[in-house]
Amino acid sequence: MNKKIAVGILGATGMVGQHYLRLLENHPWFEVTYLAASSHSAGLKYRDALKQGWHASGDMPAAQADRLVHDVADIKAARNQCAFVFSAFDMPDKDAVRAAENEYAQHMPVFSNASAHRSSPDVPMIIAEINPGHLSIIPQQQQKREWKGFIVVKPNCSLQSYLTPLYALMKAGYAIDRVAVTTLQAVSGAGYPGVPTLDMIDNVVPFISGEEEKTECEPLKILGDLVDESFVPYEGIRISAHCNRVPVTDGHLANVMIGFKDKKPSRDDIISIWKSFSAEPQTLDLPMAPRQAIIYLDQANRPQPKRDRDSDKGMAVSVGRLRPCPLLDYKFSALSHNTVRGAAGGGILNAELAFKKMPHAFA
Amino acid sequence: MNKKIAVGILGATGMVGQHYLRLLENHPWFEVTYLAASSHSAGLKYRDALKQGWHASGDMPAAQADRLVHDVADIKAARNQCAFVFSAFDMPDKDAVRAAENEYAQHMPVFSNASAHRSSPDVPMIIAEINPGHLSIIPQQQQKREWKGFIVVKPNCSLQSYLTPLYALMKAGYAIDRVAVTTLQAVSGAGYPGVPTLDMIDNVVPFISGEEEKTECEPLKILGDLVDESFVPYEGIRISAHCNRVPVTDGHLANVMIGFKDKKPSRDDIISIWKSFSAEPQTLDLPMAPRQAIIYLDQANRPQPKRDRDSDKGMAVSVGRLRPCPLLDYKFSALSHNTVRGAAGGGILNAELAFKKMPHAFA
Amino acid sequence: MNKKIAVGILGATGMVGQHYLRLLENHPWFEVTYLAASSHSAGLKYRDALKQGWHASGDMPAAQADRLVHDVADIKAARNQCAFVFSAFDMPDKDAVRAAENEYAQHMPVFSNASAHRSSPDVPMIIAEINPGHLSIIPQQQQKREWKGFIVVKPNCSLQSYLTPLYALMKAGYAIDRVAVTTLQAVSGAGYPGVPTLDMIDNVVPFISGEEEKTECEPLKILGDLVDESFVPYEGIRISAHCNRVPVTDGHLANVMIGFKDKKPSRDDIISIWKSFSAEPQTLDLPMAPRQAIIYLDQANRPQPKRDRDSDKGMAVSVGRLRPCPLLDYKFSALSHNTVRGAAGGGILNAELAFKKMPHAFA
Amino acid sequence: MNKKIAVGILGATGMVGQHYLRLLENHPWFEVTYLAASSHSAGLKYRDALKQGWHASGDMPAAQADRLVHDVADIKAARNQCAFVFSAFDMPDKDAVRAAENEYAQHMPVFSNASAHRSSPDVPMIIAEINPGHLSIIPQQQQKREWKGFIVVKPNCSLQSYLTPLYALMKAGYAIDRVAVTTLQAVSGAGYPGVPTLDMIDNVVPFISGEEEKTECEPLKILGDLVDESFVPYEGIRISAHCNRVPVTDGHLANVMIGFKDKKPSRDDIISIWKSFSAEPQTLDLPMAPRQAIIYLDQANRPQPKRDRDSDKGMAVSVGRLRPCPLLDYKFSALSHNTVRGAAGGGILNAELAFKKMPHAFA
Repeated sequence: MNKKIAVGILGATGMVGQHYLRLLENHPWFEVTYLAASSHSAGLKYRDALKQGWHASGDMPAAQADRLVHDVADIKAARNQCAFVFSAFDMPDKDAVRAAENEYAQHMPVFSNASAHRSSPDVPMIIAEINPGHLSIIPQQQQKREWKGFIVVKPNCSLQSYLTPLYALMKAGYAIDRVAVTTLQAVSGAGYPGVPTLDMIDNVVPFISGEEEKTECEPLKILGDLVDESFVPYEGIRISAHCNRVPVTDGHLANVMIGFKDKKPSRDDIISIWKSFSAEPQTLDLPMAPRQAIIYLDQANRPQPKRDRDSDKGMAVSVGRLRPCPLLDYKFSALSHNTVRGAAGGGILNAELAFKKMPHAFA
Repeated sequence: MNKKIAVGILGATGMVGQHYLRLLENHPWFEVTYLAASSHSAGLKYRDALKQGWHASGDMPAAQADRLVHDVADIKAARNQCAFVFSAFDMPDKDAVRAAENEYAQHMPVFSNASAHRSSPDVPMIIAEINPGHLSIIPQQQQKREWKGFIVVKPNCSLQSYLTPLYALMKAGYAIDRVAVTTLQAVSGAGYPGVPTLDMIDNVVPFISGEEEKTECEPLKILGDLVDESFVPYEGIRISAHCNRVPVTDGHLANVMIGFKDKKPSRDDIISIWKSFSAEPQTLDLPMAPRQAIIYLDQANRPQPKRDRDSDKGMAVSVGRLRPCPLLDYKFSALSHNTVRGAAGGGILNAELAFKKMPHAFA
Repeated sequence: MNKKIAVGILGATGMVGQHYLRLLENHPWFEVTYLAASSHSAGLKYRDALKQGWHASGDMPAAQADRLVHDVADIKAARNQCAFVFSAFDMPDKDAVRAAENEYAQHMPVFSNASAHRSSPDVPMIIAEINPGHLSIIPQQQQKREWKGFIVVKPNCSLQSYLTPLYALMKAGYAIDRVAVTTLQAVSGAGYPGVPTLDMIDNVVPFISGEEEKTECEPLKILGDLVDESFVPYEGIRISAHCNRVPVTDGHLANVMIGFKDKKPSRDDIISIWKSFSAEPQTLDLPMAPRQAIIYLDQANRPQPKRDRDSDKGMAVSVGRLRPCPLLDYKFSALSHNTVRGAAGGGILNAELAFKKMPHAFA
Repeated sequence: MNKKIAVGILGATGMVGQHYLRLLENHPWFEVTYLAASSHSAGLKYRDALKQGWHASGDMPAAQADRLVHDVADIKAARNQCAFVFSAFDMPDKDAVRAAENEYAQHMPVFSNASAHRSSPDVPMIIAEINPGHLSIIPQQQQKREWKGFIVVKPNCSLQSYLTPLYALMKAGYAIDRVAVTTLQAVSGAGYPGVPTLDMIDNVVPFISGEEEKTECEPLKILGDLVDESFVPYEGIRISAHCNRVPVTDGHLANVMIGFKDKKPSRDDIISIWKSFSAEPQTLDLPMAPRQAIIYLDQANRPQPKRDRDSDKGMAVSVGRLRPCPLLDYKFSALSHNTVRGAAGGGILNAELAFKKMPHAFA
């Protein structure tokens, strides 16, 4: 590849936007050339538009600090400056986000972290190791919506830790029909300023608004089939979730109980399936892909957010404590980095996947 | 009551021992007159025996600071100085604890926090609101073991938050046969020094040694029946537990999913049952009993350890977030103070119950 | 006292306002009858006006939950419903706060936590144990400003921990002319939501906007003299401060180095002076006064926020670690509860002092 | 350099020992070939000897996991397997540490983190940017003690953050004679398990045993002169320290006030001196040396442990908030990574310095 593809970030000043800038700083294929945010930030240098500071790890990429931030409404500038965009909007108004993403999709591909389009039946919600084939809806999406570009979304961060391990077993022929999951989620999932310190010192909170609904429903679309130009949710699994906020900066932990529909693998089978699990991101050797998508840890007290979230540049899922469940069949713990694998890193991996599989769509 | 009953604390220098001293400081019936610990502490004043300091809340009770600590082996002193003892041993050697408790039980009642005797089939494991009737085994225990005293134990702190709410429903005629519980447990449960700070800053740990086994098994004995001089575990319920350590000082939180065997109450029924639940500790107006054993909180983000652990002097169970469960029938969160309700406070309540129901056994 | 004095709270929905409600719940002299906040909250019940919830410890006082909140501009209501007000405004606009306090002062006494009037030369800034005599300016303030009421303010929370111990020594005849102080301040000082969790997990911040200026200047006014109807700052002392934010909920700790002007007391002298220090709040037996204003702790690692902030209902200053200083003369650590002694509790103590000394001014 | 120098780690299983292994994993000059610990660990594989687990960041170096751990008393093995050793003993018994280090020094160079030899008048205590010249005592040390090897120590971690900035100014001709420093120190400084979580949740502790003495005295030796075969402490400076423990994993922060003896630089002068400060580690381009020894941060709220401790692989000192001091002349905040710059990284830098300056001594 001679020249890098020019990329824009919508919502570049927010926390997820910052993570995109950080993770793309030395990307071999993509180069950030366009930054957009709300009209308040338009016309400012990126460093000055960060009113609440830089909150991704490391330092602000020097190459971006002096770049002028555009108004997200300024599609013309985007068309001149980049080939596709990542949408990292953190506005609560989902209708406004959806409208803005649609505007961009008329002209170029949009890879979105936002929840606005997750339930749109013609928009694929991709975890690159699970349902890369869902990208095949893109031509239909483009035709029906009369877009030159398209929209691909990624799911909520709360399910990134446990859905890939479940899928690996299902793909190996062991249908899972019942899942009870309790998450212990990091505060970075709420952005910045996000969760007040007074709620998190000497405390945990057994509630995150809207999160349980997402973690119970979004997997069904990801595991679903593409039928007649839209995704039909998978009906073979029932998920019940309880989501807690805990005083951890990054890394969502999930305690999972699973029940198999009929055939039940042995403990060794499961660990073996996880350790050998490989999918398109690994086969295609995508830059952001973890070499090993699922890492099984033997130590009795792992995975832990602080120790395991950064495994394989924050893109691997760490799993441990697989043991029989007195109620369902097995139980285990799983962990993923919520702002990397669960947000910007997952979005980049989706773009890499699409770019590799359908380069023509980026022309 | 004219004169208070003289009480001893075994393991008085440990963390649970300290909580006993604190909670008994102004007790209307009992007065601490005897302190015992390992031979290292014997002969020292209590204040000097606390090599790692006072870690219960508030200050060390002034009346105990200068009291000499006895060697736990010095039963003779105990017999002279107190009518019964609380066992707050935190030694890992269960056999040694059991032997020491047996020695004391030859002469006087022993109310124990330790796990040594929890599986002894003739030793009642009591939660005062649930199975006060199990105390009826005492005469048989005394006779068989040829003890003048007896032993009553309390269960592990991890189940105190959710078992009473379950029992309230079962008592109201709604049999529960499946329970999935995930606990987020405070560090005080591990004593002092306990959990290193390096493991708890920016972290949670999805494992506590031995805790899941206890929280899955002990409820069966508590809910069980007394048949032919021993307790037969209840077989109608399957419990699956996942126990996490979180950076909270006090207060164990449980996220619970429950399935009913046949009849299923409505959400309003359940809340009504919980709010009106009352048992022997309340009827007998025991000093340590919470006025309301189960407090239901309507706010979406409660119970929380920091806000709710101290409800009704730390003895009430706080429950919230009751909602339908896609997998079983309902799910909810429950919280109790692990070093009060789950340890010293629960032990004191057991002693009050026994003293009120069978005062002759304390003579 | 037959009937309690009716009291209003301005800024009742903010964090300091909440602490006023909590601390006044069972006050022997005062009774909260009037709540005011911004126009957004006006007309709502107090419980509904608390959009971000109750953040003082314990539960919201039941007697206030259903009370209607008034617009702070509605002075008429205040005049009908209360005899004086506490100002707990947390608006950043100091001019607006000053204007609102002036409005109220036309009609009734105002005891303020806000910084708006701290530098007004005719407004006394009171720490009840240090400069109760400064209240003598009130008649002049009333006359000059043509107010029926008056304004008394309290200083910033950062200096409450160390100024009383300094003053006790000065009062005993040992002039202090140099002070180096480093504070480790709790997050509750920033209100709610206040400091984001992402800034406080695994971190401390060596900066609090505006705090060092306040802690260096305000003591000079408190220690100053009343000359010709205005306060002349004390010039005999130079204070240098460094203020840090640390992950503690409540309790500001100060590490202090002091130099004496000429006479230098021995270590025993100093401890003896502190232990025996008593002032008007103690003499007058004011309800909110700590019995002992300064508590000296002998343990090497005290005072600590978690262990010592609640001493004597959060109103005492805890001091420890007095030792020689290689640079100045002595160094020590001091601690006070910032939202009690340093905010609402200090304000209430000021009102009690004024009410006791000049009851006629409350008529 | 064709072949790497073989290196041993004494106390390899402790926390500082682990950091040595991590930092030396890909070192261009040195290669770890010998691990020693107490007799309890002798004969075990390193991975099995880590009874309390791996606590340095990242994973245990694969190349060391299966290496057999030797008894530190087994000098013969050391002589066969390595050319010099790092001493990372964490035993409290200073005499035993000194004896063991002396044993090794008979045969090979010893670079020590331990405090045992810091006050030995013929043992240089080196901060590589400050007193590299002190290495010139080595031949005298060897001759006098009849050692083939030698001992070099590094100072306590608490002073690493502020002493280099002070020295940079002194070297530029501005003598500093008064320093007031308050440190906020991370828990990793106490090793593992170290500080109990119960002491650090919602708390800070204004005391660390022995730390203030070290931070007040050790700089005097580092800044001192070599006279007649021993170091004479610098007498021109008085330092007063207050050391606090705070809930931070890594990174010691210091709030510093300084007074100049006569000439006083401007604020711009100081910042310019810091930014341009360069010393032997930089000139010699030592592998572990930070490119810029002192980094000045312009933001008002920096340096912060979480954001700045890893600057330049954890070896740079970050400084900020330089401003006039009402008491002395200036005040500022400084930060360094205590387990890297302040421990293992500093030790490695000392070894690199010695190896570069006197390679013959390693033969």
